[in-house]
Amino acid sequence: MEKKPLNQLTPDEIRAALQETKAAYDAFQAKKLSLNMARGKPGPEQLDITMPLLDALPSGASAVSESGDDCRNYGLLPGITEARKLFADVLGADPDEVFVGGNSSLELMFACLQIAYVKGIAGCTPWSKLDEVKFLCPVPGYDRHFALTEYFGVKMIPVPTDDNGPDMAMVKQYVESDASVKGIWCVPIYANPSGIVYSDDTVRAFAALKPAAKDFRIFWDNAYCIHHLVENPKKPLTINQACAEAGSEGLFYQFVSTSKVTFPGAGVAAMNTAKANLDELSGHLGIQTIGFDKMNMLRHVRFFGNADNMRAHMEKHRVILAPKFAAVLDMLDAEIAPLGIAKWTKPQGGYFVSFNAPNGTAKRIVQLCKEAGVTLTGAGATYPYKNDPDDSNIRIAPTYPSPAELKQAMELFCICVKLAALEKLA
Amino acid sequence: MEKKPLNQLTPDEIRAALQETKAAYDAFQAKKLSLNMARGKPGPEQLDITMPLLDALPSGASAVSESGDDCRNYGLLPGITEARKLFADVLGADPDEVFVGGNSSLELMFACLQIAYVKGIAGCTPWSKLDEVKFLCPVPGYDRHFALTEYFGVKMIPVPTDDNGPDMAMVKQYVESDASVKGIWCVPIYANPSGIVYSDDTVRAFAALKPAAKDFRIFWDNAYCIHHLVENPKKPLTINQACAEAGSEGLFYQFVSTSKVTFPGAGVAAMNTAKANLDELSGHLGIQTIGFDKMNMLRHVRFFGNADNMRAHMEKHRVILAPKFAAVLDMLDAEIAPLGIAKWTKPQGGYFVSFNAPNGTAKRIVQLCKEAGVTLTGAGATYPYKNDPDDSNIRIAPTYPSPAELKQAMELFCICVKLAALEKLA
Repeated sequence: MEKKPLNQLTPDEIRAALQETKAAYDAFQAKKLSLNMARGKPGPEQLDITMPLLDALPSGASAVSESGDDCRNYGLLPGITEARKLFADVLGADPDEVFVGGNSSLELMFACLQIAYVKGIAGCTPWSKLDEVKFLCPVPGYDRHFALTEYFGVKMIPVPTDDNGPDMAMVKQYVESDASVKGIWCVPIYANPSGIVYSDDTVRAFAALKPAAKDFRIFWDNAYCIHHLVENPKKPLTINQACAEAGSEGLFYQFVSTSKVTFPGAGVAAMNTAKANLDELSGHLGIQTIGFDKMNMLRHVRFFGNADNMRAHMEKHRVILAPKFAAVLDMLDAEIAPLGIAKWTKPQGGYFVSFNAPNGTAKRIVQLCKEAGVTLTGAGATYPYKNDPDDSNIRIAPTYPSPAELKQAMELFCICVKLAALEKLA
Repeated sequence: MEKKPLNQLTPDEIRAALQETKAAYDAFQAKKLSLNMARGKPGPEQLDITMPLLDALPSGASAVSESGDDCRNYGLLPGITEARKLFADVLGADPDEVFVGGNSSLELMFACLQIAYVKGIAGCTPWSKLDEVKFLCPVPGYDRHFALTEYFGVKMIPVPTDDNGPDMAMVKQYVESDASVKGIWCVPIYANPSGIVYSDDTVRAFAALKPAAKDFRIFWDNAYCIHHLVENPKKPLTINQACAEAGSEGLFYQFVSTSKVTFPGAGVAAMNTAKANLDELSGHLGIQTIGFDKMNMLRHVRFFGNADNMRAHMEKHRVILAPKFAAVLDMLDAEIAPLGIAKWTKPQGGYFVSFNAPNGTAKRIVQLCKEAGVTLTGAGATYPYKNDPDDSNIRIAPTYPSPAELKQAMELFCICVKLAALEKLA
């Protein structure tokens, strides 16, 4: 098929292109692929990098924390000292303001919402007793964030984002005028799915917020803070530093984990917030558990030693992942760019490429891919209530498939994008 | 001091005994002890038994589950197949009805309550929208259970227990007539703190309940199901079998963990309930986490191989713990029994001895111990709202101290019991 902007095609050319693309699609269907690109899962070769972690706490080793506590027994709800220090170092935070939890940062986010919903925080009414609670949701965003707030009946308000982050004028307007706005979901570094990094001005604008609600918190999910795809990544302003400068230390809950550093599901998650917030949250968390897995914390600390070694470990992931992202972007550049029908991000880190298909075709593209054996994240998933008003955004997750599978999947994807666009034109 | 029933002492003898006991107490205070018997913590020598667990999943091993799933990656919310089978075997349950969670059965109990509170179960109104929700609480019971229900504003109703379990006539009356009664806390085997084992008739009476509330569940915390202190333990009727016979399979949530089998905090927890219940709970749990730590599940399965080996492992714990319990009971028999002032349980398993001091003296005894350097579980902790109406029950936790420390602590304890009783008589 000739590669020129589709809007320059004559009706005859459109018919011909449609026929040709349909034939290419049928040929793919005949291959009976079965690939899953729905989630941001590390590939097996990434997991192999971390195998030595399993030997980092053998039976002959001491299981005593540097605080003198036996990590094999109950206790130390906020986590072991050395793990709190490690995550503090990763985030540029104070170890006293870091709580090291279980295997899932999502679980810690859920806990923060649940505490505000059931018991209330900062002396405020529990959300369960309020008529309406709202959260701002920069879009496109992370479907599991939206699922959390939806679970608690929180009304989600989409906020547009550009290359610098969310529309901060809109954020400020909502947060400072409406006391029912209790939070905002942020992935500040290599956002899910767009891959953008919030600009320093954006981070400062967050720190400068004067919320109408005393129990407003920025949910700062720093899931990808060290997950670079380039050798010399940006060094963005941290929320800790921005809030310290603005005198708004209690404004954020920050989350991080090693899910995509070591093992998803068998890593360590942490949260970071002002001491007063952390003390309040700990009081509640201490009801639901006696403590999290300190042996796995110790295993991780022994494996990494320090944050610099953790960053060096991430370099190994980068070497595996950068070519996969390049393959996706190269294919889009070659196959889709000339058609003038779509835009996508070129992330310098994180786990996703955010693809904006012609309006009204995202669902169709995902369906076409599915019917030819490639499962993508559902269209709409990147919007609250799975409602993408333009039916345009698709999250591409290149990390899990092998390079050969990825090539096939992206060939199919490009065919489906063309097909859906041509169907719409025809 | 002469050992005869205190109620046979003359006023002069009481004054003399008081003086003598006070002197013994002062001598103990001078030793400046610092011992903690507050919690049911395994001792370090018990934790040593489990150290080989740390080598059970080394870097050279496969991390693939028998289902073919890579335990290093996301997925398998209900746990890995072989771990579900292992716990099913321990409980006498169907593996499809077992959910293997994180490191804490308490956390799973909390989740079950939270789901009913926030979302409602079995099509019923969420508890947060009800005027009143009640739980039955067999007493004496486990303080952390009571803390969970108190957290959600649940009204707790104490139910007396005897050697066969809770007063089932009272339980039946409440459960079958009052739709605001949504649950009951049970520790059916080696109850915390009494150590009693529910009789088969009691278990059958539970299974025969016809609750007024569709969302009533028996919270069956089988924390000590394999934690025997005798060589030939009772084999009580399981709740699974009793409910299967009664056709009431959906009536219970059962909980279990390896916290006191392997490592507290770094073990594996599980729950067991009818498939329909489990599917409903899983749907909710899938919002708050992508999955629990499958690598630790695999480590445990590889370490134990099967439930029989887990039971054999418990025998090693028994060898350490039985003498500690014997030391406590021997001391009480020698020092307190002749005085005719108190009763206590002689458990065949579990982690506690339940001691009933003369009414109105439990708080005083705990205070006296504390001021001489031995921390006990707070008096009242074994009752909802920490309110023991008789101020009588004290939970003794003999597991953590070394034998020498335990001897000292129990000597002090007996002196404090005598002292408080004599103070009351004087």
